[in-house]
Amino acid sequence: MTDIIVATHGGLAEGMVDALELIIGKQENIWFLGLRHEDSIDTFIKRVDSFAADTDHDILFMTDLL
Amino acid sequence: MTDIIVATHGGLAEGMVDALELIIGKQENIWFLGLRHEDSIDTFIKRVDSFAADTDHDILFMTDLL
Repeated sequence: MTDIIVATHGGLAEGMVDALELIIGKQENIWFLGLRHEDSIDTFIKRVDSFAADTDHDILFMTDLL
Repeated sequence: MTDIIVATHGGLAEGMVDALELIIGKQENIWFLGLRHEDSIDTFIKRVDSFAADTDHDILFMTDLL
């Protein structure tokens, strides 16, 4: 199984996953991370690293802007 | 001025506006409406109509699916 992380500015990722699950139902392998106004890039990277450390699955990252 | 309503399934619209405002700052003429799981179509239409009745501006609707 592949885990999917949707990572975006603000609440976009959460909103995308919410809309997706409204339409096709709850998904077990899709997660969201949002870069909030108060987050530093380091904080955000730590959250990504923390997620990656917690799974043995392959991870597909989907982002809005790099 | 034109009001912009982003209307989508679930929290997608809210997330899009949140990300937009994170990047370019608070906007005075952009609003979001989300169709939630518990909403009927009639409820959602009433929310759209209510918004339209409260403004004298032109309205640009942006949606995910029709």
